[in-house]
Amino acid sequence: MRSEVSSKASTAEFCLWSIPTAMEHITVKFLGPAASFSHQAAVEFFGKSAELLPCVSFTDAFTAVQQGEADYAIIPCENSTNGPVVQTLDLLADPNGFYEDVEVCGVHYLTVHHCLLARRGVFSSQQDYGSVAKLYTHPQAWGQCERFLGKYFKSIERQDVSSTSKAGEIVSKAKTEQSAAIASRFAAEFHDLDVLEENIEDKTDNTTRFLVLRNKTSGRTAPRPFGDLNNRRVQGASAATARKTLISFMVRQYAPGALAEALLIFKRHGMNLTSINSRPSQKKNWQYVFLVECQTADNLGDKGVGTEILSHLQSVTETCRHLGTWSE
Amino acid sequence: MRSEVSSKASTAEFCLWSIPTAMEHITVKFLGPAASFSHQAAVEFFGKSAELLPCVSFTDAFTAVQQGEADYAIIPCENSTNGPVVQTLDLLADPNGFYEDVEVCGVHYLTVHHCLLARRGVFSSQQDYGSVAKLYTHPQAWGQCERFLGKYFKSIERQDVSSTSKAGEIVSKAKTEQSAAIASRFAAEFHDLDVLEENIEDKTDNTTRFLVLRNKTSGRTAPRPFGDLNNRRVQGASAATARKTLISFMVRQYAPGALAEALLIFKRHGMNLTSINSRPSQKKNWQYVFLVECQTADNLGDKGVGTEILSHLQSVTETCRHLGTWSE
Repeated sequence: MRSEVSSKASTAEFCLWSIPTAMEHITVKFLGPAASFSHQAAVEFFGKSAELLPCVSFTDAFTAVQQGEADYAIIPCENSTNGPVVQTLDLLADPNGFYEDVEVCGVHYLTVHHCLLARRGVFSSQQDYGSVAKLYTHPQAWGQCERFLGKYFKSIERQDVSSTSKAGEIVSKAKTEQSAAIASRFAAEFHDLDVLEENIEDKTDNTTRFLVLRNKTSGRTAPRPFGDLNNRRVQGASAATARKTLISFMVRQYAPGALAEALLIFKRHGMNLTSINSRPSQKKNWQYVFLVECQTADNLGDKGVGTEILSHLQSVTETCRHLGTWSE
Repeated sequence: MRSEVSSKASTAEFCLWSIPTAMEHITVKFLGPAASFSHQAAVEFFGKSAELLPCVSFTDAFTAVQQGEADYAIIPCENSTNGPVVQTLDLLADPNGFYEDVEVCGVHYLTVHHCLLARRGVFSSQQDYGSVAKLYTHPQAWGQCERFLGKYFKSIERQDVSSTSKAGEIVSKAKTEQSAAIASRFAAEFHDLDVLEENIEDKTDNTTRFLVLRNKTSGRTAPRPFGDLNNRRVQGASAATARKTLISFMVRQYAPGALAEALLIFKRHGMNLTSINSRPSQKKNWQYVFLVECQTADNLGDKGVGTEILSHLQSVTETCRHLGTWSE
C-alpha cells in the first residue's frame, strides 16, 4: 500500500505525505485507502510534519504501533450518529494482551461532509445534473445524502463501492462514462476531480472522532495538532481543553454491585465519567470488558490519572489498564 | 412476506406456524427470512402455540408490536462473541418516542450451530466432500467455521449470500449444481436438505440472546417459554432464575458525576448492574442514551422494579424509562 500511495504522491501536485527535512521525521498509519476520512483526519492532525502511511485494517494499525513500525496511528473510534466503532473498542479491550504498549495520546474530530464529484470538465456547468448517468459511493453515504439525492437523482443508476474515496477514484478513471461520485472534498483534491456541489449531506454536524495512538515505550511525546487546523479539531467536542483518560477493566462476573463499586471509585477521585462502553471479554460468555472514559481534574497535572485511582480500581476489578490520557 | 411463508408452510411437511385451535391464538413477529436464527428462536420459545410471522427489519418488529399488529416479537439483542446488536439498542433507546408501549417481557438464548447442508441424495456418503464444487453462506459464517473449511474446503468457490437460511434455500433449488450451504439444522429441516456434517463452527458456545417484546397496553401476560425446550432457553445464561429489568435514561450533558450518580441509585436499591450500553441520543452530538440492565432482588415481587427507584432515577436524569422486567 505504501509504495502505491508514495508513487501517486510523487506524481500528483496534491502531496500530503512529504517528509519534512528540517523537522523530526515521524510516521503515522491511517486506515486506508488513500483519501479516506482517516487520511483526511491524519492530514488535519499531523499536517506536513509526518509521513502518512495507509493500512488495510484496524488490527494493522494497532500492530504497527505495538511493534514500533510506525510512531503513531490514527483510527476512528466513534461517530456522533452511529455510535462506537466496535473494531477499535475490541482492540483497545485487547483480551489477549497483544497490544500492551499501545496507548491513546490524542483525539481528532472530523465533521463528515459529502460532495458531488465528477471528472474535470465533463459537466459544463456546476449544476448540470441532468446528464449524470451513474452515481458511485459507499452504501452508508446514500443514506446520509437522501434529501439531495431525492431532489436531483431520483432514478439514476447507483453503484455501491467499498469507500467514498474509491468512488472518487473510479469516476476519475471512467473516461467514457457520464458518472459522478459522492465523496469528500479531500478525495476530490486527491483524485483531481471537479466539485459539482458541496455539503450535500442531510445532517451537517455528523462528526467522527478519531483516536491518536502511540507506543508508550517509544518515548514519543503526544503530538501537537497541526498549526492553524487546530480549531477544526474540536468541532463537536464537549470542551476544547478537557483532559480525558481511558481505562479498561473487567468486574468479577455475577458479583453483586461490582460494576457500581468500580464506577464509584471514579467519583471518589473527583473524575467525571464521560463515556462507558462494554465489549465481550472473549474469555467467558456474558462477561464484559468495560471501557470507561473520564474527565480528569486539572490539578492532577500532566499524568492526568494518578496511581492511587488505578490501584483502587485494581483492588475491585479483575483486570485494569490505563489506556491513555490526552487533552481534547 | 407472510403469504409467501404461509404458502410454503401449507405444502411443506415441516410446518412451524400452525394455528392452535383449542389454545389461545397469539401472533409473533420474528426477524426473517423463514428458517433464520430468529425464526428458530421463535419456535423454541413459543412452540406450536403461536402463529409466527417473518418481518423484514428490526423497525418492522417494533412497529408491529407498538401498533398491535402482533402480540409479540422476538429479535436478537446480543451475541456472546460480537456484542450488542445496535439496531435493537437504538430502537429500545427510542429517542423520538415511536415505541412508547413496547416493552421487554422475556429472553431466549440460542446457541449458534452451523451444519454443512446439501440437496437430498446428491452426495452418496455423508463425508463425500471432494465432489462439492461451490459453497454458499452468510459472510459472517465463513469466519465462524474457519477450522472445518480450512481442513476440507480450502480452494472451493465461495458465494456470499444475505443469510444462512437463504444459502440453504439456494442449494435446495440448484438442481444442476454440486453445491452445499452452511446453515443451521433448523434451516436444513425447513428447506428439506441433507445434513452432511453437524456443529462445524469453531466456537461451540457462540450464543445469541433474543428479546421477547410485547405491547404493555395489550394486557398480554409474559409468555411462558415452550414446554420441553425450556432448558435450551437458559444456555449460557448467567443464572436460570434471575429476574432482570431494563431501564433507559440520559444524563445531563457535561454535568460532572451525573452518570455515577444515576448508577449509584441502582446500588442503593440493592440492584446489581448486569450490563450497561450507551447509544447516541440523536438529539445532540456526544450525548448518550444509557441502557442499563439490572438484576432485581427477589423480594420486589412480580413488578420487579419499584416505582421508588424510577422516581429517584427520574430526579437525576433527563429522561428515564422502564423498558421491561422478566425472568431469565
